[in-house]
Amino acid sequence: MRKLVLLLCIVQYALCIDAASVKSPNGNIELKFSLDGTGRPVYEMTYKGREVVKPSHLGLVLAKDKHASMGMEEHDLMNGFTIDKEETSTFDETWKPVWGETATIRNHYNEYVATLSQHWLGKRPVGVNGAQMAPKQHQRTIIIRFRVYDDGIGFRYEFPQQNDLNYFLIQEEMTEFAMAGDHKAFWLPGDYDTQEQVTQETKLSEIRSRMQEAVNWSNSSVAVFSPTGVQTSLQMKSDDGLYINIHEAACADYATMHLELVDAETKALTTQLGGGSNAYTPNPKPLNYPLPKPFTFVSHLTPDATGLKGAMQTPCETPWRTVMISDDARDMLSSNLILNLNEPCALEDVSWIHPTKYCGVWWEMIVGRGNWHYTNDYPSIKLDQIDWSKVKPNGTHCANNEKVKRYIDFAAKNGLDEVLVEGWNVGWEDWANMWKRDVFDFVTPYPDFDIKMLNEYAHSKGVKILMHHETSSSTQNYERHMEEAFQLMNKYGYDAVKTGYVGDIIPRGDHHYSQSMNNHYLYVVKEAAKHHIMVNAHEATRPTGLCRTYPNLVGNESARGTEYEAFGGSNPDHTCILPFTRLQGGPMDYTPGIFVTRLSEWSNNTSWARITIAGSLALYLTMYSPLQMAADLPENYEKFDDAFQFIRDVACDWDDSRYLEAEPGDYITVARKAKGTDNWFIGGKCDENGHQSVIKLDFLDQGRQYECTIYADAKDAHYETNPQAYTITKKVVKAGQTLKLTEAPGGGFAISLIAK
Amino acid sequence: MRKLVLLLCIVQYALCIDAASVKSPNGNIELKFSLDGTGRPVYEMTYKGREVVKPSHLGLVLAKDKHASMGMEEHDLMNGFTIDKEETSTFDETWKPVWGETATIRNHYNEYVATLSQHWLGKRPVGVNGAQMAPKQHQRTIIIRFRVYDDGIGFRYEFPQQNDLNYFLIQEEMTEFAMAGDHKAFWLPGDYDTQEQVTQETKLSEIRSRMQEAVNWSNSSVAVFSPTGVQTSLQMKSDDGLYINIHEAACADYATMHLELVDAETKALTTQLGGGSNAYTPNPKPLNYPLPKPFTFVSHLTPDATGLKGAMQTPCETPWRTVMISDDARDMLSSNLILNLNEPCALEDVSWIHPTKYCGVWWEMIVGRGNWHYTNDYPSIKLDQIDWSKVKPNGTHCANNEKVKRYIDFAAKNGLDEVLVEGWNVGWEDWANMWKRDVFDFVTPYPDFDIKMLNEYAHSKGVKILMHHETSSSTQNYERHMEEAFQLMNKYGYDAVKTGYVGDIIPRGDHHYSQSMNNHYLYVVKEAAKHHIMVNAHEATRPTGLCRTYPNLVGNESARGTEYEAFGGSNPDHTCILPFTRLQGGPMDYTPGIFVTRLSEWSNNTSWARITIAGSLALYLTMYSPLQMAADLPENYEKFDDAFQFIRDVACDWDDSRYLEAEPGDYITVARKAKGTDNWFIGGKCDENGHQSVIKLDFLDQGRQYECTIYADAKDAHYETNPQAYTITKKVVKAGQTLKLTEAPGGGFAISLIAK
Repeated sequence: MRKLVLLLCIVQYALCIDAASVKSPNGNIELKFSLDGTGRPVYEMTYKGREVVKPSHLGLVLAKDKHASMGMEEHDLMNGFTIDKEETSTFDETWKPVWGETATIRNHYNEYVATLSQHWLGKRPVGVNGAQMAPKQHQRTIIIRFRVYDDGIGFRYEFPQQNDLNYFLIQEEMTEFAMAGDHKAFWLPGDYDTQEQVTQETKLSEIRSRMQEAVNWSNSSVAVFSPTGVQTSLQMKSDDGLYINIHEAACADYATMHLELVDAETKALTTQLGGGSNAYTPNPKPLNYPLPKPFTFVSHLTPDATGLKGAMQTPCETPWRTVMISDDARDMLSSNLILNLNEPCALEDVSWIHPTKYCGVWWEMIVGRGNWHYTNDYPSIKLDQIDWSKVKPNGTHCANNEKVKRYIDFAAKNGLDEVLVEGWNVGWEDWANMWKRDVFDFVTPYPDFDIKMLNEYAHSKGVKILMHHETSSSTQNYERHMEEAFQLMNKYGYDAVKTGYVGDIIPRGDHHYSQSMNNHYLYVVKEAAKHHIMVNAHEATRPTGLCRTYPNLVGNESARGTEYEAFGGSNPDHTCILPFTRLQGGPMDYTPGIFVTRLSEWSNNTSWARITIAGSLALYLTMYSPLQMAADLPENYEKFDDAFQFIRDVACDWDDSRYLEAEPGDYITVARKAKGTDNWFIGGKCDENGHQSVIKLDFLDQGRQYECTIYADAKDAHYETNPQAYTITKKVVKAGQTLKLTEAPGGGFAISLIAK
Repeated sequence: MRKLVLLLCIVQYALCIDAASVKSPNGNIELKFSLDGTGRPVYEMTYKGREVVKPSHLGLVLAKDKHASMGMEEHDLMNGFTIDKEETSTFDETWKPVWGETATIRNHYNEYVATLSQHWLGKRPVGVNGAQMAPKQHQRTIIIRFRVYDDGIGFRYEFPQQNDLNYFLIQEEMTEFAMAGDHKAFWLPGDYDTQEQVTQETKLSEIRSRMQEAVNWSNSSVAVFSPTGVQTSLQMKSDDGLYINIHEAACADYATMHLELVDAETKALTTQLGGGSNAYTPNPKPLNYPLPKPFTFVSHLTPDATGLKGAMQTPCETPWRTVMISDDARDMLSSNLILNLNEPCALEDVSWIHPTKYCGVWWEMIVGRGNWHYTNDYPSIKLDQIDWSKVKPNGTHCANNEKVKRYIDFAAKNGLDEVLVEGWNVGWEDWANMWKRDVFDFVTPYPDFDIKMLNEYAHSKGVKILMHHETSSSTQNYERHMEEAFQLMNKYGYDAVKTGYVGDIIPRGDHHYSQSMNNHYLYVVKEAAKHHIMVNAHEATRPTGLCRTYPNLVGNESARGTEYEAFGGSNPDHTCILPFTRLQGGPMDYTPGIFVTRLSEWSNNTSWARITIAGSLALYLTMYSPLQMAADLPENYEKFDDAFQFIRDVACDWDDSRYLEAEPGDYITVARKAKGTDNWFIGGKCDENGHQSVIKLDFLDQGRQYECTIYADAKDAHYETNPQAYTITKKVVKAGQTLKLTEAPGGGFAISLIAK
């Protein structure tokens, strides 16, 4: 570990005339900051002298609140600024993640900090005798902090505690990202409540015309806010080969950011068209700021139930806004910029946090062969009015003693750490989309799930059961029961919980990615940590690297997972996009490992997974996560036990990772060194076009021999017509050799290299 | 106890031609029910043959939800009904309240129950091959249950569990109360977030023209919804001397009801003008139901953040809608109709619930001589970022060890049970109206409040400290900390909590009287009961008799309390109105007992209480509550120790109560027999006009002598000019004698009768 902070200079300015400039440690990235003629902050960014972000404005529009005591007046944090102070410094530190892709992470950046202030005269107060008093002089200070890394920049707004900026409401954050061209973009429709759509790949200029199709396509959009609104992390590629990614880091008690593109047809931003109209801000202010030029993204925060975007108390800051950049796509995947911008680990004891391989009573319910619920005999359920011991079972309830024991046996036999069991607790009969607040109690098992016996059975075989808390997005209900639910977990020896947020948020009107919900998700993680419980939150906000600070947040869904292979399928290129987008903020519980891709082989479901078996194995490498599921049924794995050997062998925590080949939407190849060993594992995954992979084994220890097992697509393999055709080859290899592998359409490969 | 249920008749109808009729046990009240030509339910009500409620419609408008799974279709529960079944029965039971105005309460009514159904054909489904399938036959059943008492009626809607009515959203309840004339009404502006305004006394026809003045008057209105919207309980008086009161009973997991008056100028109801417009119901349905005739009230429920009024799951029911009626104003006060319509006590052990007299560290902060907060040195506070031991105290913090001990000594000396201490816990520096979620933790005392020492000191003197939990309406924060807060109370021996809900509700957009908030208040009461804690909730929903079911709900504020005497004052008639309105639903923690009414005598506050000392003593009888505060400062009481003797003596739980004289807004005289004794106490309170009271002592035991102490206004007493002029007279009286007393303007009297 080395830690080095150099304070380079502090300069006091009365007025800023020239733009300040800061370069990345290697000099490739340059960041410039200035104020325009109206005192509006402007930044721009280049990479190797090429424009990445053209001059773009920064600022926030504040909502006028009914409470005069908040001292809001009418001043936005948009313009009229002067620069009070500029500071630059260098930071270089290497830290160790609790789990991750590498044993250590270097956090090396040059920082530029501008302290800005607005000054204005308040209204002339009227004295007790009617006399006109002298108007009060007001001053507000904000700080904009930039960190310039070799692989991108991060910047945020900071609001020091001060008399004229104590509490404030955000009508909209107006951070601009002016793109230098009509880049290709991998985007999801901007949506306040889902991020599970199919990724679209279009030019920026085609987003508007594609939007309706994109929304219809996946049939999962819920709350789309603009015909040019997209989500982050947004991966782009310029015509001249620059890879650009916009996302955010450390979004905790703040609304999740979307991006609204200004294109040639834009007349006004959605916010300018009346977003925020409600009883609390009866007249959303017209935003009389000039519309930026086409190809500019403007931040658009997720609103609360009243349409506003945030309630803030100083001292506070926004999340970091990030722009990652490289001319090599592999750098997008190996970047630690998002993690580095998060705070260090906040937990003192992390000994109880462990990477986990698991299977679970899950896929057969997703596919539709069995059910989460126990009875079909009630049109609706009230938890306090039912005697479950007298209820007639439907016979299709999956989370029963016999089946769970079967999964525990399978896990124990194959070295899997845990067994997820969904549908174990009462309330599944009418759990979703009914605006039902008291939907689960999280502590009462169905009569056929003997919680004591099953946990004891699992523990006797060295396996744990993985808890499941579907909240049905009734967050108030979950918070009421959470402490008791965690105590139950401690009592029976659970150490991890998969949470779920399916459906509309209760309290009604709130959204999945609002400030209050982001606070809730982190509240759950913090409360869980007190009980030494790891959290894997599904349908929660897309992650922004908070797992550095709270490493018991071992996973999130927050994108289109494997379940969609049972809901009509995902495109073969989907898993070649996710590492560039969704995975930037943290690991995804993608639940890979489907071997029997034609679901009709064992169910009535006509959907099918767009992947070969070798491709499925590759995902355990290319989709980094400390939590890896073997999602298919035990009996399906038993049919392909030689291929399943790779899942038994593969690690899920790493000392090193090398991205060998990458192109978003096309292919990804990565080699990883298993934690605390000399063994390497390599995975390659490609899209529907197949891929020829050439792997130079120059990362192996010189002179050492490795037992190499290659799980590859067979010659005629194809994700649609021949997904189960694979070959397994064993040989001895050493450093300097080259492996050439052919990935089938929708296929891939997986390699284990065991040091001799 | 006697319990008698007579099933009188069950009749099956295909069509209802004639109206059904039910009379009260004594025959004075008649209730008729029928369907109109469109199948809309209609009821009407007479008292001794005179019209009380003219034919009025019943029904609910449902919101169309985006979730087709809820099976909403477009069918309101308004018309198209047929009567499936009618049932009548009689019920007569006498029950014992845990605390109350009388030792027993008789619950005697005749019941009429109409089972109604709607039938319709669903949309014609399209088969897999495009074939038109047969439309599905739908049926919905609701029940309207009427209970007819001698002192009024209650009715509610019931929704049995059924396939076509499983979950539903309420756009508006459309219950009508068509008044028979232009009655005088005692009303508060309808408001979603406050009920602390000054009561207006006007004709119904004058409500609209008075509204703006009424809203401005008290300066406390927050969310007024209509120029003719008013709150319940609404007390009226007809020109021919009928006293009519509209309120509700047992409002638990349902929005609080307001009333919107249709007058000559009404063009449309507020609901019809677009209430409910939001993302979840993009197009509030136009309500194409005819506007009722002038002098008709229509129910208007408190909305949630999305504008809707309720999310329901069958089986369920609405609260009872009540109409109390008499030609004697005293019957309004002695009525137990609201309590009788609530469910019996739900708590098994009630031994820990006790009526309580208390004083408290409160009034001097309300008046402004001291503060709740501890320091002035921070523009804002973040609880997790401050070391209180190092904070500079402001020197005006009231809840300090010395002062609290002074109050404990005073309570012990004067037989008061508990001492309320507000401002004991950290967070008061910036607690209100800042949209601050994490405002209090409810467990951390300020450095000058030694929670262990003070509780031990109090207990050593036979006194308890009364806990205070101001939530600042951040209900999510309170629910997160509540369990720990109650555990702290148990640890230190607190057995009662005063809760507060000042300011706007967090989660933002919600309202104080919405379904979710009403659920919250009752959730707190139920959780408190598990810890044997009594609850006195301020700023919470006006009560509807739930204290019968949960008798640990020993008090509520929910109206303009004594604090307003320090905020500009309340009218002298205020306490002659509240027993007819606010107190119908349950006891009020009015915090009476101000002896030094000119606050400038001991503070910089120029406000003054509009009451004489004798009048203040009367409030301990006329404002029934099992929780009675002696609100003034100990030093103020010590100046008038002979008058304070009455507060020492008076009981706060009763075996019997006799309302001797009453006229809303003018005067109230009541005699009460102290629980478990033969002693009686009598109180008389009048408005600004004074009152001559004549009291026949015919309720005393025949032949027994009573030591009678009379605390009366002196001859020249006056609430403004001479409030501290009182006389104390002692004599021996017996049954049959008559007492004649003169109440000064804004005055009253108090009498103790101790059996010899």
